[in-house]
Amino acid sequence: MKFASLRDGRDGRLVIVTDDLARMTPPDRIEVTLQQVLEDWDALMPGLKRIKAALESGEARSEPFDPAACAAPLPRAFHWADGSVYLNHMELVRKARGAEMPESLYSDPLMYQGGSDILLGARDDIVVGDEDWGIDLEAEVAVITDDVQQGVSVEAAATHIRLVLLVNDVSLRNLIPGELSKGFGFYQSKPPTAFSPVAVTPDALGAAWDGHKLKGAMIAEVNGERLGDPDAGDDMYFDFPQLIAHAARTRPLGAGTIIGSGTVSNRDRARGSACLAEIRTIETIETGKPSTPFLKFGDRVRIDMRDAAGRSIFGAIDQQVVKAPPVA
Amino acid sequence: MKFASLRDGRDGRLVIVTDDLARMTPPDRIEVTLQQVLEDWDALMPGLKRIKAALESGEARSEPFDPAACAAPLPRAFHWADGSVYLNHMELVRKARGAEMPESLYSDPLMYQGGSDILLGARDDIVVGDEDWGIDLEAEVAVITDDVQQGVSVEAAATHIRLVLLVNDVSLRNLIPGELSKGFGFYQSKPPTAFSPVAVTPDALGAAWDGHKLKGAMIAEVNGERLGDPDAGDDMYFDFPQLIAHAARTRPLGAGTIIGSGTVSNRDRARGSACLAEIRTIETIETGKPSTPFLKFGDRVRIDMRDAAGRSIFGAIDQQVVKAPPVA
Repeated sequence: MKFASLRDGRDGRLVIVTDDLARMTPPDRIEVTLQQVLEDWDALMPGLKRIKAALESGEARSEPFDPAACAAPLPRAFHWADGSVYLNHMELVRKARGAEMPESLYSDPLMYQGGSDILLGARDDIVVGDEDWGIDLEAEVAVITDDVQQGVSVEAAATHIRLVLLVNDVSLRNLIPGELSKGFGFYQSKPPTAFSPVAVTPDALGAAWDGHKLKGAMIAEVNGERLGDPDAGDDMYFDFPQLIAHAARTRPLGAGTIIGSGTVSNRDRARGSACLAEIRTIETIETGKPSTPFLKFGDRVRIDMRDAAGRSIFGAIDQQVVKAPPVA
Repeated sequence: MKFASLRDGRDGRLVIVTDDLARMTPPDRIEVTLQQVLEDWDALMPGLKRIKAALESGEARSEPFDPAACAAPLPRAFHWADGSVYLNHMELVRKARGAEMPESLYSDPLMYQGGSDILLGARDDIVVGDEDWGIDLEAEVAVITDDVQQGVSVEAAATHIRLVLLVNDVSLRNLIPGELSKGFGFYQSKPPTAFSPVAVTPDALGAAWDGHKLKGAMIAEVNGERLGDPDAGDDMYFDFPQLIAHAARTRPLGAGTIIGSGTVSNRDRARGSACLAEIRTIETIETGKPSTPFLKFGDRVRIDMRDAAGRSIFGAIDQQVVKAPPVA
């Protein structure tokens, strides 16, 4: 099953999209939001599956699916927590500044809580006040859970993964050192995050989903140039059930909690990178200083993942960076 | 106007409470949630004000108000960001460990993003897996905003404060050093936060609200013993409009955003403390080691603020600490 939320009010209008992303249910077909589906999954999914079957068979009315009409699958959420589980990325960053990796990072996932009141659709602009803040993309995988009990085991956590999607965790790199030096983690340096047009149930991912992580090349491009296509299934040090269990160690998680992987990063340098900071870090290690600039106003970012037949699985994230308008 | 949300489903059932907290509208009187009121404030408030007037005059039906029936005013929210603006608290903590205060803390507010998918009502248990995690209260003030534009000025930010309430920002002190050493800030060390039974519009606070901060003694007690009653209006280094502008510097804020002050703390030691960590810090400075323990299972925490006549303004937060049940 593939879900999208068309832009409509604060929570969007839920549609089911065909597996090939060509067509969707008419916008008036489904009366609940994706948040409501996640809150009442077992009751609502049988009916939604019947709609999906009729959509795929052509028996039901349908309309062309346009990713440009999409909000984020959850246009706002009650919980968005992002891990950093591709340790290659962190090892590179620390190597560039001559720092050690703390041992605890190999036993305990890093995770920060992101803003979830405003989540961006796949084609929404990245609106930033100042180019000098060091605008960067981060191509990631995320899962969305239903209700999760406090203290859940890793094994049980796996059963709470309801949806999988792609993320652009937009980051303002030059605001990060000042924020982290204050000790409370990211806040201003993590402006609104963008999500792929569709969120996909694990069963619809076939062999790409092994119950714990997503296998597939994460294609990251800026202005049509490939930054990299690291495989999301490789070098993932903690998997999604481990991240969920980490998040739920001291609290229950409400239905609709989004848990991210952090920037996908492979040890194989031939796969390139899924963010500009990592490229700049490698340049610093190799030549003493970075040469690739961060994003400028007008730049376009594209993030996509394709199936074996070359078809986009989640639809592409395709965003332009624009300057924030003057404040009224 | 004083709002409460009775326990009912995920978003509660909104009631208007009399200024003296004695009576409330019947639970079937208001059909929208507090989140919806915040999303459509100007359209909904005139009708709600008419209901309030009839409630206070006795013309309308009413029922006794019981704080024990309350969820948090927003039982879940899309954004909960907590500052740390009583710098006395931070100065003490750093003095105890012989560390300097970074200069940036005097020009730039500290703020972390908290979990908002599960917010606790004023009488809900504090459910913790392990006593050794160092369970502590933090008595704070918070405001709730409507929609705030990205890049808002401090002056304009003040106009977005719709509600004021009290907070118990439950903290797991012994998990904090490990989390902060990883650099990403708090996550597991900040389990679900609790809120006062009612949230109050600024106009209903009278002279206690000056448009930027709340004046009044924040009474913090454990098992009936007073920890302190520091004044929330004293020694507040950044005020709420400054915190909102800080939060909105790189993003818009969605209606229903909750912004907290951090633990209230006065330089006047006679006012005591609003959390155990600060008491332990003062003990460490004075005697070389802390003697006051953190909270144990069975302990009760009480947080309240009273008006000039001695009546509770927001209703009291009154919670028991309990051990998390075994995971199913």
